[in-house]
Amino acid sequence: MEKVALSDAAISNDRRAIRRIQRLSLHLLRPLDAFDGHVFPSLCVGGRDRPPLPSVSLAELMEYMKRRHRDVQERIFDFFASRLKLHTPVEISTAEHRELCMRQLTALVRDAGIRPLRFVLEDPSVYFVIMEAAGGIDISLGIKMGVQYSLWGGSVMNLGTKKHKDKYFDAIDNLDYPGCFAMTELHHGSNVQGLQTTATFDPITDEFVINTPNDGAIKWWIGNAAVHGKFATVFARLILPLQGKGGKSADMGIHAFIVPIRDIETHDVLPGVEIHDCGHKVGLNGVDNGALRFRSVRIPRDNLLNRFGDVSRDGKYTSSLPTISKRFAATLGELVGGRVVLAYTSVGVLKVALTIAVRYSLLRQQFGPPKQPEVSILDYQSQQHKLMPMLASAYAFHFATQYLVDEYSEMKKSHDDEVVNDVHALSAGLKAYVTTYTSKSISICRESCGGHGYAAVNRFGILRNDHDIFQTFEGDNTVLLQQVAGDLLKQYKSKFQGGTLSVTWNYLKESMASYLSQPNPVTTRWEGVHHLRDPSFQLDAFRYRTSRLLQSVVMRLRKHTKTLGSFGAWNRCLNHLLTLAESHVESVILAKFIEAVQKCPDKNTMDVLKLVCDLYALDRIWNDIGTYRNVDFIAPNKAKAIHKLVDYLSFQVRGVARELVDAFNLPEIVIRAPIGMASEAYSQYTECVGF
Amino acid sequence: MEKVALSDAAISNDRRAIRRIQRLSLHLLRPLDAFDGHVFPSLCVGGRDRPPLPSVSLAELMEYMKRRHRDVQERIFDFFASRLKLHTPVEISTAEHRELCMRQLTALVRDAGIRPLRFVLEDPSVYFVIMEAAGGIDISLGIKMGVQYSLWGGSVMNLGTKKHKDKYFDAIDNLDYPGCFAMTELHHGSNVQGLQTTATFDPITDEFVINTPNDGAIKWWIGNAAVHGKFATVFARLILPLQGKGGKSADMGIHAFIVPIRDIETHDVLPGVEIHDCGHKVGLNGVDNGALRFRSVRIPRDNLLNRFGDVSRDGKYTSSLPTISKRFAATLGELVGGRVVLAYTSVGVLKVALTIAVRYSLLRQQFGPPKQPEVSILDYQSQQHKLMPMLASAYAFHFATQYLVDEYSEMKKSHDDEVVNDVHALSAGLKAYVTTYTSKSISICRESCGGHGYAAVNRFGILRNDHDIFQTFEGDNTVLLQQVAGDLLKQYKSKFQGGTLSVTWNYLKESMASYLSQPNPVTTRWEGVHHLRDPSFQLDAFRYRTSRLLQSVVMRLRKHTKTLGSFGAWNRCLNHLLTLAESHVESVILAKFIEAVQKCPDKNTMDVLKLVCDLYALDRIWNDIGTYRNVDFIAPNKAKAIHKLVDYLSFQVRGVARELVDAFNLPEIVIRAPIGMASEAYSQYTECVGF
Repeated sequence: MEKVALSDAAISNDRRAIRRIQRLSLHLLRPLDAFDGHVFPSLCVGGRDRPPLPSVSLAELMEYMKRRHRDVQERIFDFFASRLKLHTPVEISTAEHRELCMRQLTALVRDAGIRPLRFVLEDPSVYFVIMEAAGGIDISLGIKMGVQYSLWGGSVMNLGTKKHKDKYFDAIDNLDYPGCFAMTELHHGSNVQGLQTTATFDPITDEFVINTPNDGAIKWWIGNAAVHGKFATVFARLILPLQGKGGKSADMGIHAFIVPIRDIETHDVLPGVEIHDCGHKVGLNGVDNGALRFRSVRIPRDNLLNRFGDVSRDGKYTSSLPTISKRFAATLGELVGGRVVLAYTSVGVLKVALTIAVRYSLLRQQFGPPKQPEVSILDYQSQQHKLMPMLASAYAFHFATQYLVDEYSEMKKSHDDEVVNDVHALSAGLKAYVTTYTSKSISICRESCGGHGYAAVNRFGILRNDHDIFQTFEGDNTVLLQQVAGDLLKQYKSKFQGGTLSVTWNYLKESMASYLSQPNPVTTRWEGVHHLRDPSFQLDAFRYRTSRLLQSVVMRLRKHTKTLGSFGAWNRCLNHLLTLAESHVESVILAKFIEAVQKCPDKNTMDVLKLVCDLYALDRIWNDIGTYRNVDFIAPNKAKAIHKLVDYLSFQVRGVARELVDAFNLPEIVIRAPIGMASEAYSQYTECVGF
Repeated sequence: MEKVALSDAAISNDRRAIRRIQRLSLHLLRPLDAFDGHVFPSLCVGGRDRPPLPSVSLAELMEYMKRRHRDVQERIFDFFASRLKLHTPVEISTAEHRELCMRQLTALVRDAGIRPLRFVLEDPSVYFVIMEAAGGIDISLGIKMGVQYSLWGGSVMNLGTKKHKDKYFDAIDNLDYPGCFAMTELHHGSNVQGLQTTATFDPITDEFVINTPNDGAIKWWIGNAAVHGKFATVFARLILPLQGKGGKSADMGIHAFIVPIRDIETHDVLPGVEIHDCGHKVGLNGVDNGALRFRSVRIPRDNLLNRFGDVSRDGKYTSSLPTISKRFAATLGELVGGRVVLAYTSVGVLKVALTIAVRYSLLRQQFGPPKQPEVSILDYQSQQHKLMPMLASAYAFHFATQYLVDEYSEMKKSHDDEVVNDVHALSAGLKAYVTTYTSKSISICRESCGGHGYAAVNRFGILRNDHDIFQTFEGDNTVLLQQVAGDLLKQYKSKFQGGTLSVTWNYLKESMASYLSQPNPVTTRWEGVHHLRDPSFQLDAFRYRTSRLLQSVVMRLRKHTKTLGSFGAWNRCLNHLLTLAESHVESVILAKFIEAVQKCPDKNTMDVLKLVCDLYALDRIWNDIGTYRNVDFIAPNKAKAIHKLVDYLSFQVRGVARELVDAFNLPEIVIRAPIGMASEAYSQYTECVGF
């Protein structure tokens, strides 16, 4: 017996074409607005006055769910679909994966003519769909692209000035200058202000001298550094000799510098630079992360990215911003796009995992009533419980991240202060919330597909491993949620009395006023389906919780600050603050989902989306029922009714589950998993094993 | 720059020895019964009347936590510690990993003289510690060993008779006959009774003919099949020609047969057998899973494993058991050891992940009060919230699985019916509950270690990927929990009125009687620390919940069965049934933990264990506070007090966290992660990257 290669590449082009035609014809034959006849629809209906399952037109739903600039994504999918040598096989060594990933990126830029850098600067919504599509081909490719264009390219363009743009734009865009973003150090990740690398100005030679003062300051996890990078944007403390008190050196805080690390022609590591390979990772092994140590590496003064602070020929510091902390905030503020893109692409990963899990759960049959055929595992209440609220969340996140992208684009145009604030906190909150949710969900999808979910070819392993770090990079989720909480507190304190709250925060003013009195003892008992499915009840519940959490944490912080100081008090309330931040993010997500339902032009589609939205809202309320019960916002009878309704809505959503995942409209090249194909799943699976 | 191999093997023996000595001296120098001075102990203390942190003697704690037969484990650790060529590198291809894993197993059996088969049959508690230690070297090795000894060896010995034992024992034990356990088919995993492979008796040649009737009946995921196996225990429907009604064939149900699949000398695949490679998996790539198709493969009649059913020379069926379903139950009953071992070794995996995460969280410092040193991330409430209840759970599971192993060993000796029942349900419940918990926890550990947790060398990726399938094999967790629920219902129905309940179920009788009345309105409001930390309050709460869930599901099932039939009613209540099963398992775990605390001979150790046990109990109650609030078992003020106490206990456990993980006493060869070493963690980490 020979071992059989499992790579997609092994399947010849011809067979793919035939299969696509077969699949297309199946789509045409299948009545799109009908349900799959599932085996026991009467099972959960029970009651007499249940509404009928909504009917759904896949075409309408797909149209409404279409990302803007879908044409750009299709160009990318088509480009890769016809180039089998660029497909990532199921098993690949780290060294080969890195080379393949670089080839994929180079082909995309040079052969397919996708030039991302302009979009990073001028039209981020196009950049985001490019990133999503690239990540669909291989998440490593998406991240490799992000390192080159958002991090390395973005830092040069956004933190530098015209001279940098003139010198670097084309070579970054066409990949002549692959580069790195060297911020994180071995001892400092989240605490960027604690970085220890120094850049000392030498007025004699008009240069900066870059130094790694100790092992803890080695730049660590730097993408593109181990193999491909020629430059790095290095974050370091700017030291000006003789400019401090009593003629000492002055530490001007963290600034960014362009540091060449390898020779442009020979690719040899440059003198004074020491590079090691961070080695094999849990996932994303197409990206070559390295560690960098600098020993008195000299760079010209022009290499300081000087948009927010500059050093003159004679070593004097100038800045339009008055303090170190304001300059630091402005510098980091330019990097917020990375969070937007992670939130956005994380939803893309969730959709892939869900498509595979739902399709397999419809296909797979196991057990059944005595002497009757076996039933699809998606007909089991437990499987619906695992997957249907997840499907609802994917829809909710789809609309919320779309909103975030729009706001971010608006911010890049207007630079309006209010929008800036909103985008900063919302991108932190959505990035943290969505990536944590997706990470957990991929594991649940794997588990819900049993043994076949454990075959690498069926994708859950690589999706989980690659996506895992989304929770950590571009801001650790626990830290980001604290930023959201901090922002809520700031707004509460400074603007609550008469001032304006920023857009997505606005509801707090209203809800504070109306809810901080005791809940209405009548409505807490209402348990009718009509009431529970009323968006204003659902939003009220979410916002009430946020308001309560905000108010109570303000009081607790005030109390503890007196004895513990502000740091100690913050830590003492930390779990509370994290819950507050999550609650706020959920409120925003629900509000955006409800808006999307209401804006839907097609009545049937709207009904389906309303069903999904209700499941999202009520499942979240049920998950946190303890909180609601504790403050008697919801009475026991109502809690029970919500629980029952969540089961029932999951059952209803199962009735349209196939259409809901088909509407994500993910091409085969993105799904790839044999068990996740729209048809012939088992036979594709046996085929890939060699039968 | 050269790529640097990250393999442990790269670290020379000498350096290891030096490091071990250094470490040992650190242990000796460190006052074992003192706390780590952590930065702000006053932070969470607040109240005036808080008890002081308990002091702990690591030696006493370690002694109490020592697994029986620790000497056998140390023999295995020492054997591998000195054989670098047998260490699994961080990155390894599937093909190489399979060969390495076979070499590891062969060396363990032939060079280290570990002979597991006798223990499988005669002293399973020794077998379980061998499995745990092997899994500590590489989880693939543990599973490869399990396939050979529990599955292949165990099925031959337990389902066969003396003739099989005589013929196969030695060759299985010394690895001359590597074998497989061919139960699962492509279309049937959980539903074993739905298997379609046939074994038809041919009375002319006195043989069975093994056949795969269709693609769905291909044996799938068969460990040891792709490369190494020479035999397989094949589960197939026994077909007897002319024995059915009207002279038709009779289907006697699922039986097990020994089928040779490769030539003993040449290792060529035998005629009629088709083997394909299931390929790369999410994890456990040291185990070679394959797919088997049989085309009229003939085996002698003696190859029927005939303990529970036999066929005579003239084709007549005999059995000591009257029905197909009784024989099926007896056959599967012999396989329950696999669940015991998975529950037991899953705790081992949890301990490894926790040791790494806790040690790194003590080492890692990030942020801090203004102008003061940074603080360990384990001093953050959020990090305590993530890791301390998990540490408490590992202790809880340790004692519960120890109990399960003892019961299992007792069962193998006595075959007492009550113990058999108890072990069946308890092994199903603990396997499902513990493996689900461990899977989630590994992800949380990874995330709580940030970027450095994502380096493959730091282990979380491989632990998660290897352990993931523990949730699925030897019984899908969702299916196993239903068995537990089913057993609870059976006991409720048949024995509740005056009959005896099996050992671990006994509490239900009492609690049913005392709790099904309304909760006592006075005690529901008690919120004193003494009351909340009283084991009888905690046990009451757990058991009350189980009793309520059991009673209410009985009523719901009764109601729905009338309209939906038993299958439909079961499905309609499925989420409820799963919650019931989990609740029961938690009750058993808590009871065993409380027992272990009370039995502890050393007072200080007992105090520490009591602290950990309280955290386990109250954290679980808080997690399900909605349920308790809904039935007013706990009043709002009490809920708030529990919440506060959980934070406080987490803070207290953090004070002894280092000792709690050190007491797991895992050797370096099991931990391996540089960031998880007891000392020098950062320098081991930079060293392994090449600095």
